[in-house]
Amino acid sequence: MVIIMEKDIQESYIENIIKRLDEEGFSIHRSTGVEHTLLGVIGNTSKLDVRDLKIMPGVADAYRITAPYKLVSREFKSEDTIIKIKDVVIGGEEIVIMAGPCSVESREQVMTIAERVSKAGAKILRGGAFKPRTSPYAFQGMGEEGLKILREAADKFNMLVVTEVMDKDQIELVCKYSDILQIGARNMQNFSFMKALGKTKKPIFLKRGIAATIQEWLMSAEYILSGGNANVIMCERGIRTFETYTRNTLDLSAIPVVQKLSHLPVMADPSHGTGLRSKVLPMARASVAAGADGIMIEVHHDPDHALSDGAQSLYPEQFDELMDQIRVIAKVIGRNIAERRDQ
Amino acid sequence: MVIIMEKDIQESYIENIIKRLDEEGFSIHRSTGVEHTLLGVIGNTSKLDVRDLKIMPGVADAYRITAPYKLVSREFKSEDTIIKIKDVVIGGEEIVIMAGPCSVESREQVMTIAERVSKAGAKILRGGAFKPRTSPYAFQGMGEEGLKILREAADKFNMLVVTEVMDKDQIELVCKYSDILQIGARNMQNFSFMKALGKTKKPIFLKRGIAATIQEWLMSAEYILSGGNANVIMCERGIRTFETYTRNTLDLSAIPVVQKLSHLPVMADPSHGTGLRSKVLPMARASVAAGADGIMIEVHHDPDHALSDGAQSLYPEQFDELMDQIRVIAKVIGRNIAERRDQ
Amino acid sequence: MVIIMEKDIQESYIENIIKRLDEEGFSIHRSTGVEHTLLGVIGNTSKLDVRDLKIMPGVADAYRITAPYKLVSREFKSEDTIIKIKDVVIGGEEIVIMAGPCSVESREQVMTIAERVSKAGAKILRGGAFKPRTSPYAFQGMGEEGLKILREAADKFNMLVVTEVMDKDQIELVCKYSDILQIGARNMQNFSFMKALGKTKKPIFLKRGIAATIQEWLMSAEYILSGGNANVIMCERGIRTFETYTRNTLDLSAIPVVQKLSHLPVMADPSHGTGLRSKVLPMARASVAAGADGIMIEVHHDPDHALSDGAQSLYPEQFDELMDQIRVIAKVIGRNIAERRDQ
Amino acid sequence: MVIIMEKDIQESYIENIIKRLDEEGFSIHRSTGVEHTLLGVIGNTSKLDVRDLKIMPGVADAYRITAPYKLVSREFKSEDTIIKIKDVVIGGEEIVIMAGPCSVESREQVMTIAERVSKAGAKILRGGAFKPRTSPYAFQGMGEEGLKILREAADKFNMLVVTEVMDKDQIELVCKYSDILQIGARNMQNFSFMKALGKTKKPIFLKRGIAATIQEWLMSAEYILSGGNANVIMCERGIRTFETYTRNTLDLSAIPVVQKLSHLPVMADPSHGTGLRSKVLPMARASVAAGADGIMIEVHHDPDHALSDGAQSLYPEQFDELMDQIRVIAKVIGRNIAERRDQ
Repeated sequence: MVIIMEKDIQESYIENIIKRLDEEGFSIHRSTGVEHTLLGVIGNTSKLDVRDLKIMPGVADAYRITAPYKLVSREFKSEDTIIKIKDVVIGGEEIVIMAGPCSVESREQVMTIAERVSKAGAKILRGGAFKPRTSPYAFQGMGEEGLKILREAADKFNMLVVTEVMDKDQIELVCKYSDILQIGARNMQNFSFMKALGKTKKPIFLKRGIAATIQEWLMSAEYILSGGNANVIMCERGIRTFETYTRNTLDLSAIPVVQKLSHLPVMADPSHGTGLRSKVLPMARASVAAGADGIMIEVHHDPDHALSDGAQSLYPEQFDELMDQIRVIAKVIGRNIAERRDQ
Repeated sequence: MVIIMEKDIQESYIENIIKRLDEEGFSIHRSTGVEHTLLGVIGNTSKLDVRDLKIMPGVADAYRITAPYKLVSREFKSEDTIIKIKDVVIGGEEIVIMAGPCSVESREQVMTIAERVSKAGAKILRGGAFKPRTSPYAFQGMGEEGLKILREAADKFNMLVVTEVMDKDQIELVCKYSDILQIGARNMQNFSFMKALGKTKKPIFLKRGIAATIQEWLMSAEYILSGGNANVIMCERGIRTFETYTRNTLDLSAIPVVQKLSHLPVMADPSHGTGLRSKVLPMARASVAAGADGIMIEVHHDPDHALSDGAQSLYPEQFDELMDQIRVIAKVIGRNIAERRDQ
Repeated sequence: MVIIMEKDIQESYIENIIKRLDEEGFSIHRSTGVEHTLLGVIGNTSKLDVRDLKIMPGVADAYRITAPYKLVSREFKSEDTIIKIKDVVIGGEEIVIMAGPCSVESREQVMTIAERVSKAGAKILRGGAFKPRTSPYAFQGMGEEGLKILREAADKFNMLVVTEVMDKDQIELVCKYSDILQIGARNMQNFSFMKALGKTKKPIFLKRGIAATIQEWLMSAEYILSGGNANVIMCERGIRTFETYTRNTLDLSAIPVVQKLSHLPVMADPSHGTGLRSKVLPMARASVAAGADGIMIEVHHDPDHALSDGAQSLYPEQFDELMDQIRVIAKVIGRNIAERRDQ
Repeated sequence: MVIIMEKDIQESYIENIIKRLDEEGFSIHRSTGVEHTLLGVIGNTSKLDVRDLKIMPGVADAYRITAPYKLVSREFKSEDTIIKIKDVVIGGEEIVIMAGPCSVESREQVMTIAERVSKAGAKILRGGAFKPRTSPYAFQGMGEEGLKILREAADKFNMLVVTEVMDKDQIELVCKYSDILQIGARNMQNFSFMKALGKTKKPIFLKRGIAATIQEWLMSAEYILSGGNANVIMCERGIRTFETYTRNTLDLSAIPVVQKLSHLPVMADPSHGTGLRSKVLPMARASVAAGADGIMIEVHHDPDHALSDGAQSLYPEQFDELMDQIRVIAKVIGRNIAERRDQ
């Protein structure tokens, strides 16, 4: 922390602040400038609230010098975190594609879609068995039955499973079937959940909250890392802005920002980010061009009859087209995407 | 729902939509206008996603006519919900004041503050025993020990207790000590938590999420009511905007809006809404002037040494002054606030 | 400015920055701390872009210590700016009320409304003769004819005129008829306009842009003051947020914030801030309770037939009721509002 | 417009609304449904304010069926607008690159940069001669001298000029030197300016306001088209959100949205959209991948000494690298970018 005292402030104000911070166990580095006296606060400042310093008498302003997160930062670990799950590597040279339906609706549905997307090159099968819904009257998911279907389909088509856990009570159950635990945007600041996730061994796919700053998002990841689980994948999925034409505003600049601040891999979810099928293709291409380590795409063989989010699901042929396009884009920035499997 | 077809659209598109909605069990009222054909969709439309209709071929636009919530609406219940807890009435003529420290720090601290605020006219004691903190390294609260202290202080000074539950696992424990369960802004769309709250019998104090529209906030209350608990108190506590001078932007217009749409009582929390002590007084007065059914205020006898949110806590003398001011303002709009108890 | 160097940075990086800033004419105060070296930049830093410093090699972060505005600040002038226009005093003990129709529609309309609002205690007549409209096809105002009507009505009922100038070309014309020049939110960062306003002698009523931070709003006022016109009245009129139920979100906390940072008077416009008649009364009361130096209210004797913004105009009886309410609220904070004139 | 009446409303309310709209010259199509009566309003509804309908007694809600803009819409003109200026074609198969310094600082500076960017394939030279600055104390541009330099450099390197006009008074002057008139984000809703631009013959490069919805942006273009100038190029340059790490949030989904709603070409400005050099490359690639018809990039041969926005200017070598990357990406979506000229 750096505290900037008001101009020409009386010495007693400065002494007062030094005394109080000293009592709390901090060392102070005082620098008397021409106009302002600066106080550098040395010690574990992550427990200090910068607002408390700002309102102290005689203080003009106060700033946090070091980021409030540690374990997730590039300063703490400079090389990229690479997450290996079976034969899939996330955060390496390959851009990894997650695809599947919004919700698990039936065994047949999941099998059909899994076959299509795995052929096209997707390595991870997505699908919701527990669905967070704004309305208590909307379809809430198939539950464990859905998890079994996902596992079966993934095993058959040599894929991994990623699926949402809505609650810490569900962690154990979902761990039985899924390779990666997806955490929804609305749960990103559910801190007791974050703590519980820190104790699991499965990689966490952490979606950014719709009103979360990049720093808050990293702080939630910090909860998980500080609990003992170092395998967190960040996922940008759109933030809430005043614009209502799209469901959310996909903040693609968050991708290079997170890559600079943190060693964790970062993906994008253009399906939720836009909420509109016709916007998913351009934004998926843009995500790859912006440097994402992977993308998550909703695909449905019959989106008109999907039980949720049909409006943002790609037709399988659109997904094929997208894969062909992003394979070329990936190469532009020195990366690659898995080839079609049926060729 | 109303579906508006594109101008001069071919009949087959219209028939297609009618057929599909019919299959899903809806009745259709068709109206062929000069320019556009309109389709009224009749039935339980709360399970329809308006986006799915918007992207159907030939559809120009689609709108939800009826609100997606029911039980919380004025249409469902026109008279105000009045919540009685012991001798305190929330949602009636009296504007009810909740006050206390941000966090429970010690028995002595809570006793000191409770005595002061109860004398000034506050009827409900607030204080956090479990604290949701952005940083895993910040003070996380005293836990059950804190709950006991709150209960003891409230009983001694003839107050009720309101305190935050962070998690459905904590519900049972907190119910043992608290009269009202406070749900934090970050948990407002934690839907499995909302369902669990629907099964309790304690009144719920539901803070608005920082990025929640008023409709989403009412939908979260709908979860609780549809679960069987009709006693929800809505609390506006500031939304996230681009302005960074204040911690959040207290959206006071939400008060009259909620009062029009819903029968539930609505309060305001100017301490979190502004995050700055010097702004709490004006915004607390404004909350009462805007028609709030109550306000929640952080008060600390020694805010410089508070373990959390000291920057936004009022000194007891400021709280006294505020109470005197809002008693007059309440009368302007035909309401009242409890008198000082020591007079 | 304070520049914070990265931890354990090589000396050459520090020397480099000192050299460059020295070349640009700044003095540097260097402070070598335990972890970080700090550089205080002394001189006219208002021309420096803090981002340029942040990206220099070896820099961890950089902060502006002094506000980028000067003339509008409390530091520059500690006592409140009081603006006297004829017998009306803005920024003093009295809270001043501006009222009238959204648009000037006819002589009869303005006369009718002016009589009503002046009797109720409004001292300044508002009304648009030039209307900024989102649509080129909407009513654009009566122009000079409308200005003449405003002047005539104000003179007859002993009021001042405030009306919008949309363009620097209109300044001369509007100055002939109006006592105060109103600048719309969309023009707040039209800098050549701001410069032209600095050269007029009429007080400026400067609405906050819908996406303007408080600092940017003060910077626009700084343009006017630095041009030579010290009489600026700030007006909060709602900011754009994700919430769509209200037209804008009236940010009442901006009132005490501006009053702390600046000596300029600050008003509120709850009519545009909410866009909904039924929300104007509570938010107007709240504006006064929050400490506004005045409010601007749209009133229409026949809002159903208003040519613009009828939806947010009060009926005259509602305005009477509001005036009675805010007279009491004003006293709570040691201020007053003019009495009814017909009593 | 469609008006939805409340459930089981009395007939007199419906008659009342029909009567009033009839008086205003609209035809009404009435449809009596099972639950709600719907009223279709037929006529020139662009002059109606939907809020006025919403607050009429008995009205549950009201919606605008047809977009408030006409000339800019795909409905009005289905084929893409292609703008030809000398030998440059905007909105066709080629993605057109605008590049140059933020501000014109000297003849030497502009010549140096123009040579570099034109060799790399940029066809249009950008550079500010009149600079809108938040601070009245910041560098305000070289004025006409700067315009002359831009023209000379563009002519020498066979480029077009695009430069900002801040004010309608400057239009004539800037038209003498520039091929395209750039309108800054802060002026997008300066309606008297928009009207004046409608009367010029030069193509307009219309940046999106930082708080403008896509609809408002299109409405501003509508002002220009309705004035007689059909050559408008839309430019997404970032919107204001709660995220402060980047200067703005570049809303790339606006590109496919505008392309669907309108026939006008749409570009992106990743330099202002991010405000940070290291984020410009990924976001420029993403803009092309999202389908932009062109991008505008700030390039400076010595950004450390730039008089404005040096922090977001690319080094010439970075610009070369970017051009190589986006040439490949363009082909993925069936488009192309001019080759290097020195090869």
